[in-house]
Amino acid sequence: MTAPSNPTACLLIIGNEVLSGRTRDANLQYIARRLGEIGIPLREARVIPDDRAVIVATVNEVRAKFDHVFTTGGIGPTHDDITSECIAEAFGVPWEPHPEAWARLDNYYRSRGSPGDFNPARQRMATMPRGATLIDNVISLAPGFTMGNVHVLAGVPRICQAMFEALAPRLRGGPPIVSRTVHAHGMMEGRIAEGLADIQRRWPEVDIGSYPYYRPAGGGGVAVVAKGTDPDMVRAAAQDVAAFMRAAGGHPVEGEPA
Amino acid sequence: MTAPSNPTACLLIIGNEVLSGRTRDANLQYIARRLGEIGIPLREARVIPDDRAVIVATVNEVRAKFDHVFTTGGIGPTHDDITSECIAEAFGVPWEPHPEAWARLDNYYRSRGSPGDFNPARQRMATMPRGATLIDNVISLAPGFTMGNVHVLAGVPRICQAMFEALAPRLRGGPPIVSRTVHAHGMMEGRIAEGLADIQRRWPEVDIGSYPYYRPAGGGGVAVVAKGTDPDMVRAAAQDVAAFMRAAGGHPVEGEPA
Repeated sequence: MTAPSNPTACLLIIGNEVLSGRTRDANLQYIARRLGEIGIPLREARVIPDDRAVIVATVNEVRAKFDHVFTTGGIGPTHDDITSECIAEAFGVPWEPHPEAWARLDNYYRSRGSPGDFNPARQRMATMPRGATLIDNVISLAPGFTMGNVHVLAGVPRICQAMFEALAPRLRGGPPIVSRTVHAHGMMEGRIAEGLADIQRRWPEVDIGSYPYYRPAGGGGVAVVAKGTDPDMVRAAAQDVAAFMRAAGGHPVEGEPA
Repeated sequence: MTAPSNPTACLLIIGNEVLSGRTRDANLQYIARRLGEIGIPLREARVIPDDRAVIVATVNEVRAKFDHVFTTGGIGPTHDDITSECIAEAFGVPWEPHPEAWARLDNYYRSRGSPGDFNPARQRMATMPRGATLIDNVISLAPGFTMGNVHVLAGVPRICQAMFEALAPRLRGGPPIVSRTVHAHGMMEGRIAEGLADIQRRWPEVDIGSYPYYRPAGGGGVAVVAKGTDPDMVRAAAQDVAAFMRAAGGHPVEGEPA
């Protein structure tokens, strides 16, 4: 279990293309790991469509429920990019040109000698909820933004990651979540299940997860992950798991299965 | 837009390992694509933790809201596999040995000459909400189940997929969702955004999405996807997109960017 003092996070992945299976999301895992390191555990993620009513209602639900909300997707220049205006609607504020974002894009196209390329579609990327704080975009310039406890990031993975890293220094987390993994190749989860339950009871502040794996060549086994904010407890629980696996005839190894 | 007559689906991905970033989900994309083919569009997906209260509340919320709910994960033998008992609690029915599931597992371990291996932990995999209908598992035997409009699948991708295919003939969908993609390499999304919005207005029953892409070697471009249940309308909208891209100086190609 993560300490109750840790702030919590929810991720909203906004995009029909993920729900249709066209695109495989690549942001959840990155953001989840980084939030763990920062000590703001991700408690929920939702994939929702590019639908105004759904976005507004979901943003309002989760921003009340979690300390931080991250959104990915829907902040480009096209008609299906509606995240930004939906955030304004959710917060009940005007959606209007953001002077600093506007200046960045305007200057960019002027410096290229094509001021006309800062057209109405691209101007939408500099239009934001009133009161938004910019999140820098070192990849493709058009910024994300923070509005209240909602952090609005791009959907394209390398832009999303760059925005997250620009934002990260502003996020204040609790103790980082540390984990240790012990795996035993050739061991069946069903054989160690009862022993693991005992170890979980012994270490209530450590979160013990059991994950069977299969390899196309070479059979499978089980990986057990101990996770928490107290490194000593996590290490002790992982040692108990390894000792129990050995007693059950397995050959536990620290780390993820290769 | 998908036809209002299409049944809808929601996917619940249950597992701390996805929320911590340890595991990258591999089931959403598979299930999303297959549901599109079957004509039951996925309208939402949520990743939630192995937490009894959260699972029960979420299942009850989404089974009232969508025609079908699919869950993945949390049906193994270990202490952190609590999906099955949570479904029973959500439906307010006893969680009890399922005679057919019990017989399958019991017979398996007897046939291997080790009836004792059907231990209390593995017996949990044959314990289900009263009234559940089994979903076959041709990979590792222990079945999933359907309870009302909730379909409970394993989290391990190849078992999840096998269960989905065992279930698929029982799912009755609306018209399948068809799509056509047109992409133009070297074209900037911001240049065609306004024209795309016009085409979207012309084809209100077709869902037109615009997706910029970047290639580590070779620049980027934009892929536009037209999607709907009427193949003629989808084709016509895609042709409009291609014609517009050509008029804007691009070289549109049918299909996904390579």
